[in-house]
Order: sequence, then C-alpha cells, then structure tokens
Amino acid sequence: MVDQDAVLSASPTVILVRPQMGENIGMAARAMANFGLAELRLVSPRDGWGEGSSVMNSAVDAAVGAHPIVRSAKLFATLPEAVADLHRVFATTARDRDQAKPVVSPAEWAAEAVVRQGAAQRLGVVFGPERTGLSNDEVGLADALLTFPVNPVHPSLNLAQAVSLVAYEWWKTAQAGDVPFRLAHVTPPATRAMVQSFLDHLDAALEAAGYFHGNAKDPIMRRNLHNILHRVEMTEADVRTLRGVVGALSEGRRRGAARRSGEGN
Amino acid sequence: MVDQDAVLSASPTVILVRPQMGENIGMAARAMANFGLAELRLVSPRDGWGEGSSVMNSAVDAAVGAHPIVRSAKLFATLPEAVADLHRVFATTARDRDQAKPVVSPAEWAAEAVVRQGAAQRLGVVFGPERTGLSNDEVGLADALLTFPVNPVHPSLNLAQAVSLVAYEWWKTAQAGDVPFRLAHVTPPATRAMVQSFLDHLDAALEAAGYFHGNAKDPIMRRNLHNILHRVEMTEADVRTLRGVVGALSEGRRRGAARRSGEGN
Repeated sequence: MVDQDAVLSASPTVILVRPQMGENIGMAARAMANFGLAELRLVSPRDGWGEGSSVMNSAVDAAVGAHPIVRSAKLFATLPEAVADLHRVFATTARDRDQAKPVVSPAEWAAEAVVRQGAAQRLGVVFGPERTGLSNDEVGLADALLTFPVNPVHPSLNLAQAVSLVAYEWWKTAQAGDVPFRLAHVTPPATRAMVQSFLDHLDAALEAAGYFHGNAKDPIMRRNLHNILHRVEMTEADVRTLRGVVGALSEGRRRGAARRSGEGN
Repeated sequence: MVDQDAVLSASPTVILVRPQMGENIGMAARAMANFGLAELRLVSPRDGWGEGSSVMNSAVDAAVGAHPIVRSAKLFATLPEAVADLHRVFATTARDRDQAKPVVSPAEWAAEAVVRQGAAQRLGVVFGPERTGLSNDEVGLADALLTFPVNPVHPSLNLAQAVSLVAYEWWKTAQAGDVPFRLAHVTPPATRAMVQSFLDHLDAALEAAGYFHGNAKDPIMRRNLHNILHRVEMTEADVRTLRGVVGALSEGRRRGAARRSGEGN
C-alpha cells in the first residue's frame, strides 16, 4: 500500500497557462482533487486573478469541494517563472509541434512520474489556453510533450478534461505503487531555473561570437539548440560541466578580442 | 492498425439518466467525440429536451465540434427502455451499493468492452444525475458496476469528466494505447561515427582552449562530457548544430590567437 500523505505531498504540479475561463480553472482543480493532485499554478489568467475577483469566484464555484486548491493556486507572470523550481516539465499538446522532444501518452507519463517522484524530483504538467493551446516557445521550454490518444477527427479536449485525464493516470499508477527501479543520477537533477540560466549564458556567448544571423530565423535556431540540450536531462553537475565548456571555448575568444581591441589603441 | 470505421460503428453507448445541466450533456458529447464514441441516449433530462429548447442549445454550445452527437441523442422516458436493445449494461457509481454485482475499473471495463465488441455485443454505460447519482433501482438494472480509482477524500467526479474517463479508456484500449504522433526527428539519427567525429572536434577545441588540466583527470572529464552529450541521442541535424556552436565559440578565439601569433612576428 502506498503512503497516501507521501504521495500527495510530492504529487506533480499542474500549470495552466493563460486560462480564459474561471470555470475551467475550478473544474481542473476539482479533477486534481479527485485524483490526488494538490498544487495548481496559474500563468496570467486572461481575466485576472485574486481573492474576490469574478474569475476566482467562478473557479471556486466550479471546484466544489476542491476550492482550497483554487484559493492556494500560485500566480505567475510567465511560464519560465512558473516552472523555475521544477526538475522536469511536460507540455500538453494536441498536435505535433515538429520539435525534437520525446512524446508520451498520459499512461506513459504517469509511469515516468511515479518513478521520478520516488527520486524526489518535482514534475510539472503545462496546459495551454482553451482555444489556442501553448505557443511553440512555451512548448520549447518543456522536456517532453504529453499528448492524448484521441480520435484524430475530434482531437480538441476540454481543458479541465485534459487535466482530469493526466491526474487520473497519475493516481491510477501511483496507487499500484511498487516502483521497480530508481533513476541513476549521481547528482541531483538541475532545476529549470539552473538549466534556463545556462541556456541564457550560452545564448549570450553565441550572440557575442556572431553565431546568430540577426534575422527572423534566430528564434528558431535558438529553440532548436535549446531542444537539443533539454534532451540531456541535466543534473546540477552537468550544468556546471557545460558552463565550463562554453566558458573555455568563448574565453579565449574574448581574450583575443580584448587583445585585438588593445591593438587599435 | 485498427479499422477506425468499424470501431466507431460498434462503439459503446453512453446513457445519461436525468441529467440536470445542458452544458454537462454537451461536454459529455464532446468527450465522446474525442474518444470515438458516437451514440448518446438521454433519460428524462431535468429541464426537458428537444430542438430549440434551451437545454439542447446549451448542450450544443458546450459540445463544440461534437454537436451532431447532441442533436442525434435519443430520448427515453425510463432507463429500462433506454437499455432494452443492449447486450450488457454497466452502471457507474462512486460508492459501493451493496449489490451483488461485479465491480470493474474503467480500464477493466474497456478491456471487456473491446472483447465484447469483437463479438458484436452492444454495450451501454449508464451515468446518474450530477448531484445524486443513480438510484439503487437503476443500479439494479445493470449487469455490472463501473467505478473510478479516486482519492477517497474527493470521490465525486464531474459528470462529463466521468464520461470522458470511460471514453478515454475505451479508445486507449481499442487503439492499443498509441498516441497520434511521436518524437519529431526531422532528420535521421546520427551514426556513431558522426557523433564520435563531433566529439573529437569538441575535444580538440577544448584542448586548444586550455580546458583540460594536462593530468590524470583529463580522461574522466572527457568521458563525463561525452556521456552528457550522448544523452542527446543526436540526429544528423543536431550534430551540425552542435558543430556550429563549438565552431562559433572557438573561431573568434582561434582568430584572436592567430592575430596574437602575428603580433610576435
């Protein structure tokens, strides 16, 4: 039997990006409670947020008994801030984004989630706005894509139902318990903030080295490169190693540039 | 590959008993369409039914693309009439009814449903009203109970989400769990020779940049770095991208070094 309290305290985080309807936020929270998820994060709800706002009121109504999840939802301005302290992030999407990331079903996600939870890794699942889903840049922030086995003729899931299916698979898997193995990561996995900070460092070094073209292709080049590096699933030690590599490769160049600029004097 | 048309034509029937809200009828229909169910039956909706009624209108709105399922829903006065032509009926319930019937989870139900469908048996799943669920007499009409693996602290599912989970498990089982798309590798995976050639290039660049210490630790540093990069599972395009990155970062340095060596002449 699984220790219910331990399951709940470490359960995956649900992140709703720019949700449009308070009712969907509430119904998502209700589904989370049905299946043992507790932590909800909101990124820039369309119509605002806060105690007494009409959005929160309709979310609380729709949540029924799960209103504490709604009231304790954490608010963020951007997705990078909302995932900064997590170790592994899944972006839900109904369509192929042509990004080089692993794609898992809810059942496959749940199997991985339970294993990683056993290794004290914090997971997040990100859901986009009702009409549009996540932007490609938002998808680009994730380690992997989570998609649903739907009838291709009707692929568009209601937001709260998508949350419900993910939570359902998690609970189903967590209750079967019995994790067969642990992840062999010698050092702790890096948080999203550490990975993002390294990617920013790399981008700056590449910018200084003239790697980018200064045109519309730059964001795509940057995203492709980030997706390659996300696949590493970096540990904290990996981040330090890769920082050292970028530093070593670019330092001589900077030294050389300083030398060259010195020549001009 | 499963024959989609055959799956759809024989898919299980969803029966909503005394549903209260048109919106829930519509959201249930939408979930049915997402997961390949097509036939909806209604037993005495609380606020009536019929073309132009406000209940049907709100159901059609909530159904989005699945409005044909709403419009073609069959209306019945009683549950016995609604299940008369079916071969096997499951009653959904959140609580133990103390009735001597088999109890199955959605996944177990789906496994049975796919087998019976193969034998041309028509299945129905019955859902009760939002607040009260099915009466004991209604449950008594069923062959078996279908219940959900929920957190016992929050067992009450939204009606449309309950329909959604049942439909999801059915589609997942009928489709053998596959999702509509997988990891998008735009270019072929790199051969080991290509990866090794890139790693050699990187080692040489790092050597030139003074990254290594020139002692016994060098082979370990090199192996750690290679292991990080092996986890990328590089495609051919990834190798080109990473070569470009290493080139850009080190090129300025080499240029600077050439300049410096020129200075000495």
